[in-house]
Amino acid sequence: MEEVDHLAHERSKAQFDVDAMKVVWAGSKHALDVADRMARLVATDPVFRKDDRPILARKELFKNTLRKAAHAWKRINELRLTEEEASMLRVLVDEPSYVDLHWGMFVPAIKGQGTDEQQKKWLPLAYKLQIIGCYAQTELGHGSNVQGLETTATFDPKTDEFIIHSPTLTSSKWWPGGLGKVSTHALVYARLITEGKDHGVHGFIVQLRSLDDHSTLPGITVGDIGAKFGNGAYNTMDNGLLRFDHVRIPRSQMLMRVSQVTREGKFIVSDVPRQLLYGTMVSVRQSIVSDASRALSRAVCIAVRYSAVRRQFGSQDGSPEMQVIDYKTQQSRLFPLLASAYAFRFVGEWLKWLYADVTQRLQANDFSTMAEAHACTAGLKSLTTSATADGIEECRKLCGGHGYLCSSGLPELFAVYVPACTYEGDNVVLLLQVARFLMKTVSQLGSGKQPVGTTAYMGRAQHLMQYKCDVRGAEDWLKPSVILEAFEARAFRLAVNCGQNISKAPGAEEGFSELSADLVETAVAHCQLIVVSKFIEKVQQDIPGLGIKEQLQILCNIYALSLLHKHVGDFLATGCITPRQGSLANDQLRSLYSQMRPNAVALVDAFNYTDQYLGSVLGCYDGNVYPKLEEEAWKDPLNDSVVPDGYHEYIQPVLKQKFRASRL
Amino acid sequence: MEEVDHLAHERSKAQFDVDAMKVVWAGSKHALDVADRMARLVATDPVFRKDDRPILARKELFKNTLRKAAHAWKRINELRLTEEEASMLRVLVDEPSYVDLHWGMFVPAIKGQGTDEQQKKWLPLAYKLQIIGCYAQTELGHGSNVQGLETTATFDPKTDEFIIHSPTLTSSKWWPGGLGKVSTHALVYARLITEGKDHGVHGFIVQLRSLDDHSTLPGITVGDIGAKFGNGAYNTMDNGLLRFDHVRIPRSQMLMRVSQVTREGKFIVSDVPRQLLYGTMVSVRQSIVSDASRALSRAVCIAVRYSAVRRQFGSQDGSPEMQVIDYKTQQSRLFPLLASAYAFRFVGEWLKWLYADVTQRLQANDFSTMAEAHACTAGLKSLTTSATADGIEECRKLCGGHGYLCSSGLPELFAVYVPACTYEGDNVVLLLQVARFLMKTVSQLGSGKQPVGTTAYMGRAQHLMQYKCDVRGAEDWLKPSVILEAFEARAFRLAVNCGQNISKAPGAEEGFSELSADLVETAVAHCQLIVVSKFIEKVQQDIPGLGIKEQLQILCNIYALSLLHKHVGDFLATGCITPRQGSLANDQLRSLYSQMRPNAVALVDAFNYTDQYLGSVLGCYDGNVYPKLEEEAWKDPLNDSVVPDGYHEYIQPVLKQKFRASRL
Repeated sequence: MEEVDHLAHERSKAQFDVDAMKVVWAGSKHALDVADRMARLVATDPVFRKDDRPILARKELFKNTLRKAAHAWKRINELRLTEEEASMLRVLVDEPSYVDLHWGMFVPAIKGQGTDEQQKKWLPLAYKLQIIGCYAQTELGHGSNVQGLETTATFDPKTDEFIIHSPTLTSSKWWPGGLGKVSTHALVYARLITEGKDHGVHGFIVQLRSLDDHSTLPGITVGDIGAKFGNGAYNTMDNGLLRFDHVRIPRSQMLMRVSQVTREGKFIVSDVPRQLLYGTMVSVRQSIVSDASRALSRAVCIAVRYSAVRRQFGSQDGSPEMQVIDYKTQQSRLFPLLASAYAFRFVGEWLKWLYADVTQRLQANDFSTMAEAHACTAGLKSLTTSATADGIEECRKLCGGHGYLCSSGLPELFAVYVPACTYEGDNVVLLLQVARFLMKTVSQLGSGKQPVGTTAYMGRAQHLMQYKCDVRGAEDWLKPSVILEAFEARAFRLAVNCGQNISKAPGAEEGFSELSADLVETAVAHCQLIVVSKFIEKVQQDIPGLGIKEQLQILCNIYALSLLHKHVGDFLATGCITPRQGSLANDQLRSLYSQMRPNAVALVDAFNYTDQYLGSVLGCYDGNVYPKLEEEAWKDPLNDSVVPDGYHEYIQPVLKQKFRASRL
Repeated sequence: MEEVDHLAHERSKAQFDVDAMKVVWAGSKHALDVADRMARLVATDPVFRKDDRPILARKELFKNTLRKAAHAWKRINELRLTEEEASMLRVLVDEPSYVDLHWGMFVPAIKGQGTDEQQKKWLPLAYKLQIIGCYAQTELGHGSNVQGLETTATFDPKTDEFIIHSPTLTSSKWWPGGLGKVSTHALVYARLITEGKDHGVHGFIVQLRSLDDHSTLPGITVGDIGAKFGNGAYNTMDNGLLRFDHVRIPRSQMLMRVSQVTREGKFIVSDVPRQLLYGTMVSVRQSIVSDASRALSRAVCIAVRYSAVRRQFGSQDGSPEMQVIDYKTQQSRLFPLLASAYAFRFVGEWLKWLYADVTQRLQANDFSTMAEAHACTAGLKSLTTSATADGIEECRKLCGGHGYLCSSGLPELFAVYVPACTYEGDNVVLLLQVARFLMKTVSQLGSGKQPVGTTAYMGRAQHLMQYKCDVRGAEDWLKPSVILEAFEARAFRLAVNCGQNISKAPGAEEGFSELSADLVETAVAHCQLIVVSKFIEKVQQDIPGLGIKEQLQILCNIYALSLLHKHVGDFLATGCITPRQGSLANDQLRSLYSQMRPNAVALVDAFNYTDQYLGSVLGCYDGNVYPKLEEEAWKDPLNDSVVPDGYHEYIQPVLKQKFRASRL
């Protein structure tokens, strides 16, 4: 294949320093360097090949994933990679597997909920992968409602053991990743019962399989829950089901940092604050927001590059057709997603800071920002994952028919991403939690309690209620303060409206429940404000590099104004802006698209993804799309033979009228 | 498994005659009877089993589809099914295959574009499946822009033949279903070149494979284009690629109804009006709208039933948790989709009438409604397929985590449905065509030319510009005339605004292009009005059956008011309604959800889908979801053995520290 950069002309038009933007995207020169080295390590190792996933049957696919996980572990040890490098390597291997849950849930849960002694016993085993653990919380009949879990852990003082049991079919553990075929141990969440009393849900370490031959231990039924969405996607993962028939474990295997059961069977709540558990949640959700920007940026990278390569219509005289990226309809769908990828990247970065801040406060017994931090991360998890799932599918549609081919990489990306909308808190349930917090904040405004952090704006209640947007020309919409105030006023007024409507109901709970659809919209408005405000703060930082700040400013304005356009009903209904001002925002948005247009390809180059990692023929760096599409097509097993398997049994008899004899 | 109807209580609450609604949904008693008999035929025949699709590798999957197609053809002949029955049988087999294109595109195109002589020669062969045909239009580099196709058909007067040739890589035919491995013939669209002149794109019948042994004919390169989105989905179809190296066909194989090439090579346009071709398009798009209501109703049926079975939260005292369907957040997402399924069903029915009307007028040389009918069907195709694709995915999310399992049926339904947004006209491109027609209609308003059909409302220009909504209480939003006028005023004012903004641009084309994102929104508003108005007309018909009209009225109001809520920005920005009126509409919507709630399960029962056709454990009629989920899980190949394939190579060495030796 000839080596030509079909996108060279696009790249030459960029008005900023792409290398400087790579640093901004990665977070630091060091982070960029780590990502770059790990990406090359993965891209050049044939074991990590992934283009064959769509054609593998489940068993082969799964075995291949086991192979990659083992190989990654081998390389991590051989090369003595740091924790940061190893973690980036796993991300870039880009295939869900048991190690995700082992490192992402099992280990952190023991760290967070285990006593010092328990950590000393289990963590070294887990760090060396001498045991492989999963996180068995969700049950067949109980997902969002953790307090409704049915699995029981009954203390038996005679033997100093817990009896783990699944009393019903719906109490089967269902979904935990790594459980189905691999994990030797599970962190099982079960209702603690001692002295005849139910003390709610706690965590227990339970061994599932023999460390000698991997056979299932007595009393345990375990298996895989079956095929999932997509060709490859999460079918590389052994999400599992698990049932216990009176399985006994030593008392010491209950995680006892927050509460304990004594030798006699007394249940004791320790003085370690329960809010500590929130800390872990903030951390997990922060990484989910980072994953969102990563997934969305991959999809956008593919769609932007292919939109610059693809031509359609617009040629009257035999000259080349128009590049699809030059259509305003394409820009109005694609560029807000490009802006969102950057927006989520920066808000994810800020969440890291928030996590550090929360941890520090916890250590100082300061719980004042805990509830706000919790609401904020729950909301951002919901907002970014929903927008990313929709955004990936939109990018797929923006690639036209070819986006439907697995070789585009987009079907796989969508199918592997969408569970993020459901796991670690269903997105709607999370928004209702945010709304509940907002309603509480609004109701306390008169009481002198000052709202903190991302709700601080609500402290300016009177100002926001009286606010009138003073935009007179389209350029006024470029001012950060104008954008920020409009978003603040909208979010605040929606919250106040909801609060007033709830207060009209016979009871607060009935009101909350009746208005919950409106409350979800209010929570979304609040979360969008957070993302917009953090993007504005980012742009106001001192960032070096030719043209970098200008590009970030354009991205930030596109993010904010495209949201304003999409939700203009909110802004109009609450009287924050006039129809004329909404229309001016739309005019400004079109002008911003034109400013972004020459930089679009360079802005996705700044993500610094290798072709191997992107895994998309349409998104390849050199834009040489069509020969690659064909090359991929010929690899399909159906092309192994000219005459397909089944011809003699099922095609020839049709053509030869074998089925019509009786009639004719 | 015990035989209990877990949804019996739900069914007992229904306030209407479900059997009467089945007739309304099917269109007639006769149609219901046909669908019912064919569904039972498919459900009871083990060859048509489809639950194994997600675990089959591509080759097995494809072979299995060939088997089903042959078996269906055998049964159609054995049972001497009518055309209507055979067509319904194929729908219910529910698996994309070459027969779809043969019957849906190849045969109709010969009928529509072939001369009487050509029809006499080719149709009998096609009707008996002595030849299998596909429709080879789309090329690797040319989808939406048919006029940009590159394949050439050059007339050679020496031999009285056309030379079919693919001059470039991008001219490869790409995507045609049935082409990759099965079709013996293709209807190839190519640029006709004769006497050195290019006469644009025409259709040619080209044989691809030997009727004796299925080998590829000389000069032809043909194959499958590779894996597509989803586990099963369109991977049962051999979408193909095709290249010609100077392939010769007789002159008689150009379809010559509309234009001809003479023996001497003269190009002649016949007096058969080109608008005839529009007729076929109206027909194809009408069936796409029908498919949309079918696909959406399946997803909604699954989500409604499972939402009634599933319980989550809300239990403080050990009583059962709350049914998920009782949550307002669930209702506000699910019930508008249920209403949309009905809305699309009725607008699809009306499109059948429109097609009959258009055909009749064509035969009488009356082209006055042609452009309007074309715009209307293009717009409805776009509106209903986009809403259905999004709606299926929303239903999947509404089923929580379990919606991600293939056994829910929803991933497959989504993956197999989404191409409808792209094929037969990309949805955004189609909306721009609608917008162009609307702009023309608006610009001619002063000229005395009266707008017809679905644009007739634009004739009341002055009234719609002066209109002010007079809603004072939530109940006012129940009046059909109130809803209709609000939607008319919104659509008209958006169109007028666009027209005015375009006229400010230096040129009409620049203006159209610059404002195309707004034009798309305007076209959507117009199309939504069509669906709303046809639903209102339907409800005003005389429909027998206990409670039927009441239910249809509720569905219609939910459809309209949920759209109004979603697009309230349009209604406010154009001054059609006030914020207060928008808020009243929202109040009314909540009340309508409560009215729909007791009827929801019965409303999806009225679709009359068998469990086999639905193919969803979550949507099964008796609601006995959990045992079935587990039963499906154990069928996964990964559960064939306790210790997974790959344990000895890739898990044991990790646990036994084989990869750490070098380090420790």
